[in-house]
Amino acid sequence: MKLDFKVNKEEKNTKARLGEIIYNGKVFETPMFMPVGTQGTIKTLAPEEVKDMNAGIILANTYHLWLRPGEDVVFHAGGLHKFMNYDGPILTDSGGFQVFSLANPKDISEEGVKFKNHLNGDSLFLTPEKSIEIQNKLDSDIAMSFDECPPASASYDYLKQSVLRTIRWAKRGKEAHKNKNQMLFGIVQGGAYEDLRKLSAIETIKLDFDGYSIGGVANDHESKEDMYKAFTYSTNYLPKDKLRYAMGIGEPIDIIEGVIRGIDLFDCVSPTRLARHGHALTRDGKINIKNAKYKEDFTPISKTCDCYACRYYTKAYIKHLINCDEVFGARLLSIHNIRFLIKLSEQIREAIKNDTLLDFKDEFIKNYYGENYEQK
Amino acid sequence: MKLDFKVNKEEKNTKARLGEIIYNGKVFETPMFMPVGTQGTIKTLAPEEVKDMNAGIILANTYHLWLRPGEDVVFHAGGLHKFMNYDGPILTDSGGFQVFSLANPKDISEEGVKFKNHLNGDSLFLTPEKSIEIQNKLDSDIAMSFDECPPASASYDYLKQSVLRTIRWAKRGKEAHKNKNQMLFGIVQGGAYEDLRKLSAIETIKLDFDGYSIGGVANDHESKEDMYKAFTYSTNYLPKDKLRYAMGIGEPIDIIEGVIRGIDLFDCVSPTRLARHGHALTRDGKINIKNAKYKEDFTPISKTCDCYACRYYTKAYIKHLINCDEVFGARLLSIHNIRFLIKLSEQIREAIKNDTLLDFKDEFIKNYYGENYEQK
Repeated sequence: MKLDFKVNKEEKNTKARLGEIIYNGKVFETPMFMPVGTQGTIKTLAPEEVKDMNAGIILANTYHLWLRPGEDVVFHAGGLHKFMNYDGPILTDSGGFQVFSLANPKDISEEGVKFKNHLNGDSLFLTPEKSIEIQNKLDSDIAMSFDECPPASASYDYLKQSVLRTIRWAKRGKEAHKNKNQMLFGIVQGGAYEDLRKLSAIETIKLDFDGYSIGGVANDHESKEDMYKAFTYSTNYLPKDKLRYAMGIGEPIDIIEGVIRGIDLFDCVSPTRLARHGHALTRDGKINIKNAKYKEDFTPISKTCDCYACRYYTKAYIKHLINCDEVFGARLLSIHNIRFLIKLSEQIREAIKNDTLLDFKDEFIKNYYGENYEQK
Repeated sequence: MKLDFKVNKEEKNTKARLGEIIYNGKVFETPMFMPVGTQGTIKTLAPEEVKDMNAGIILANTYHLWLRPGEDVVFHAGGLHKFMNYDGPILTDSGGFQVFSLANPKDISEEGVKFKNHLNGDSLFLTPEKSIEIQNKLDSDIAMSFDECPPASASYDYLKQSVLRTIRWAKRGKEAHKNKNQMLFGIVQGGAYEDLRKLSAIETIKLDFDGYSIGGVANDHESKEDMYKAFTYSTNYLPKDKLRYAMGIGEPIDIIEGVIRGIDLFDCVSPTRLARHGHALTRDGKINIKNAKYKEDFTPISKTCDCYACRYYTKAYIKHLINCDEVFGARLLSIHNIRFLIKLSEQIREAIKNDTLLDFKDEFIKNYYGENYEQK
């Protein structure tokens, strides 16, 4: 295994943990926000820019790389690190999240999932073994078990059967896993039901994975209450010495609430997606750079931000670039937004060190969401 | 004036000149290829990347910046250098080329040109004075006179009247020019007719500009013979101590033939446009990275190229990015293609130093265009 993890401290007032990932002699502290490079590139950015933001692990999507360029191309290139020129740690998801969004319920069987390739409509079949085989070839540092991703609207009975299937799939995936350099994570599902999360966690832990993910928390229609319950009900039963990763979470308050509940890793496409639409994250909330008031605003997005965009460019210039659909605008906002979430992780870690995470949360909420924000 | 120019050597066998531009204490050698940053950004690239390619002058388009963000925004930002964070020399065109492509012939008058804004259809009017006023505010280091850009199909009689009008417009622009930091160039027109080019050059020189451009050479339907004649007939009558710029020229052979005829500066959007379509320039000709044969080609675009793309990335990876419409692919190819033309300029300068430019041309043609290329 190329990657190691240890917990160095637990915060006094919450279940937040300060940890470190050791990778190729380098140390990356947790909690950590992981930028997403879906197709083997963090949209618009070069690896050097990603490192310049103090990023640690980055994420790539197995589903997308399976379709294009194909896992064999990446394997023959010498793995994803070499292929995309990134020497930091890389995590791959299982492909499940994408596949379940493309599949009909009737096409989900014990064997796996039949679905249509979103690019050309071809019929494809993904199984726990195939997902692991692809990830083995991609040679990421952390791979995910293939889990069923039920919709937020699923009934208790459906969710229970789904949890049991996900455990059986986790076992099959673990048996198929051959890449000794690569960690394999199990995934805890079970919606917002404590007994299902407990069942899922305990049975998955029995399979002895290198870390654990919390799935089913990034569904569109889920309430914040349910998301935070799912965090709590999962981490309550997870071993303290292993990494915990909440999949698809990138809203600042959700990261903070996740950390408070003992989660170490988060990822989301939001910073680059928001960037493409002209949105910038600031300590005082999200701003739309296309707003007319920035036309002659020759100040940076944030005076306290240390990112490349804020060091050299003004809101007026970035607004101009976004207005003209110039890629460099999305690039600058992507750098800024990712750096914002990485900086948020740094601030969270500092607060854990000082046992002041709850104060940090209140202060952050007041600035970012406003005085009237109702905490869940 | 912030920019100075001198000619250091003329090649023995041709009219090629080795020169240097001195700008803010830095020396940039000519002949030079200038990358184009139409809207105040070289598409997909950061200024640091442009400098890393050993670029000198870059170009920005007056027409585009006039419409968005407006010259006043750039002026209030402190000029284009500050606005776009580029401290190297910047040249602006006059807007004429874009405006004439949007105008009806009946809307061209002695006063100026009426045309429709390509973004919203609004009726606009551009005059020689207005073009200079905009460029003064943009605060580029080299501004262009506003010239009439007749189509390649224009008759001798039309071209003659057009040359005379361009001279009158050049005079009006010069009188309107107020920015003492900014060079102003006159423009030589006259199609492929020696007497018209001569008339245009001699009358424009009388107005005593800081340098001279050769216009009407980048029309789509122009033959290479006519282009090279236009080069020769223009430079024959231009002063030896002033910069000479062939507008819109970026095809490698045209740059070489232009240099041979005594031209110093070239610009074209082709390297970034080709990049977006997946084309890469190499010493052995243009390649299409989307070609299936590159699927598992883990070698750089060019083994002898020193650009960032060739230092760290393979054809297989860039092909994957272009196939997936990932911006980083266009970015890597843009870097490579611009560097290719800048490197070509460096090789041309080396050949001028060694008085071997004609040999260099033959060798380049053989490699890039093939043995059967018919020289014009």
